Amino acid sequence: MTVTLADVARKARVHPGTASKALNPATRHRVAADTVRRIVRAAESLGYEPNSLARGLRTQRSRTIGVLIPDLANPLFPPIVRGIEQVLGAADHLALLTDTDNDPDREERLVAMLQGRRSDGFIVATARREHPLLDRLADVNTPLVLLNRITDRPRRSSVTCDDAAGVLDAVRHLAELGHRRIAHLAGPQELSTGHLRHRAFLDAVDQLGLDRRDCPVLPGTAYSTEAGLSAARAALALRPRPTAVLAGNDLMALGVLDALTETGLHCPRDLSVIGFNDMPMLDRMATPLTTIRTPQHEIGAEAARLILRILDGLPEPLHIRLTCRLVVRASTAAAGRPE
Amino acid sequence: MTVTLADVARKARVHPGTASKALNPATRHRVAADTVRRIVRAAESLGYEPNSLARGLRTQRSRTIGVLIPDLANPLFPPIVRGIEQVLGAADHLALLTDTDNDPDREERLVAMLQGRRSDGFIVATARREHPLLDRLADVNTPLVLLNRITDRPRRSSVTCDDAAGVLDAVRHLAELGHRRIAHLAGPQELSTGHLRHRAFLDAVDQLGLDRRDCPVLPGTAYSTEAGLSAARAALALRPRPTAVLAGNDLMALGVLDALTETGLHCPRDLSVIGFNDMPMLDRMATPLTTIRTPQHEIGAEAARLILRILDGLPEPLHIRLTCRLVVRASTAAAGRPE
Repeated sequence: MTVTLADVARKARVHPGTASKALNPATRHRVAADTVRRIVRAAESLGYEPNSLARGLRTQRSRTIGVLIPDLANPLFPPIVRGIEQVLGAADHLALLTDTDNDPDREERLVAMLQGRRSDGFIVATARREHPLLDRLADVNTPLVLLNRITDRPRRSSVTCDDAAGVLDAVRHLAELGHRRIAHLAGPQELSTGHLRHRAFLDAVDQLGLDRRDCPVLPGTAYSTEAGLSAARAALALRPRPTAVLAGNDLMALGVLDALTETGLHCPRDLSVIGFNDMPMLDRMATPLTTIRTPQHEIGAEAARLILRILDGLPEPLHIRLTCRLVVRASTAAAGRPE
Repeated sequence: MTVTLADVARKARVHPGTASKALNPATRHRVAADTVRRIVRAAESLGYEPNSLARGLRTQRSRTIGVLIPDLANPLFPPIVRGIEQVLGAADHLALLTDTDNDPDREERLVAMLQGRRSDGFIVATARREHPLLDRLADVNTPLVLLNRITDRPRRSSVTCDDAAGVLDAVRHLAELGHRRIAHLAGPQELSTGHLRHRAFLDAVDQLGLDRRDCPVLPGTAYSTEAGLSAARAALALRPRPTAVLAGNDLMALGVLDALTETGLHCPRDLSVIGFNDMPMLDRMATPLTTIRTPQHEIGAEAARLILRILDGLPEPLHIRLTCRLVVRASTAAAGRPE
């Protein structure tokens, strides 16, 4: 943990404003000499690093970052938020979290309120490929980092994963297990992740010598269990039936398992299933899910580091792409004999 | 969704400040008459309820509520937060979420920052039984609602669950299955929930005619899987071994399952396990957990309603207690024969 001015003030038993004055050479004379000595001793004993204070004074920052989460009930996001908070907290910044519930109107109000409270910048996990609000924020040079999802015009700095490589690994794993009829239950196509994974799926099919006609893409309307269930019902109604499914994310994959239960089919005997993200607790499920693990804590931590560097004047935009990797569990198995 | 002033302004294509002036009889004369007509028409067509505006003007509220969460990575909290956000959003208030990570120093800084940003009040899910910070906030009459956890001195309004009734149901369920050696892996005793469930366990043992000497209480240091694992190892080392365990919460119960896996024992054959809360996804686990379901969304929603009413002048403190109920799944079964 970084030692903060508040820590120094507490140790020296003075008001933080007094500690700030005492530690700033320009204002030191306004504090009683013995108080200055006590504060400096406290700062030294704690290992206080005064540059962070100087920077704060210079730039008039509020030291708060607004964080826009699309759906806090998606288990993917709490670990990301933890990563954000850990880095921001260590740099003595506060994350103000808001949950837009995938509602653009709500998002617009939240951003206005956060701006009114003088957030220094935003970490945005809610980006849609077309996103007028983010364009407007770009126009007024609001410091901003996109997390996971990006816009079609790459004007803003971002931290994403190499989803395409993950998808290729997943489809290759299925092909190596003998699957030839692999369906993709795609995430929402207005989101970059849904769009990208869909494209990556088709590329992987081509690259691995599978036949696109045997590898249908079924659209999902949301990154949710319910959307996964609907899309999976459609996939299971196809004849010939796919023997494997790559879901748009883990929640959609849980919906696939629900669809199998409904129809009396078994995973992986009748259908292999792969998710995306490796959200917490997947390994404890009745059917431990094979999935593509994204480094959730690290995504949040990188986004926080990036916004801090942007506030310090880093030239933009900068795009950071993290690696994901396939985690094989019990939901994938060798393809059965053709029906 | 409540129609907000921003909605009216957008529809009338005016600045929200203009809409506010036009809809307030006291300031209406400062807006051009045809603009007033357009705004009033927009307000009527949207069904805008002007009292919320009038109230806002009267009280100079910021319409933001700070929400202190002890551990956002605990799956219990996202549904609670959703309940808070739904009620606050409908009343055109903003929830500013912060995650204290169970760190009192961090909590202190977060509260100071939220106060600096003029939060109207707080919803606090981080209360410890002794909590100097909350005492200080009480002294300066900061509007505040405690959620789930309360302090020993009931000075603040709160929304809690009838944990004692839940614990009694759980122990009765085990007793009816023939269990006589039931251990309680208690949650942290500095938290009201840990303390209350512990006391309720002992009361239930007495009330159901079990023998306290056969029903040990093993302390857990945190509401976490790791703490549950440690306490469970101690419980499994007891001779005679307990045949059932009531864990302090669901995460601790997952730790019990991990301890069983470690030692090659089986749930429920060798040990029945009950959790507390029914956090999301428990029904999808390899061993679907019997647990005491707390109405998480409703706890959040009630806390939000309560803070809004307190801001409107409701006399305090007011204590709301919600009902929880036992959900029986596969982790509990009839006691085996005595060893």
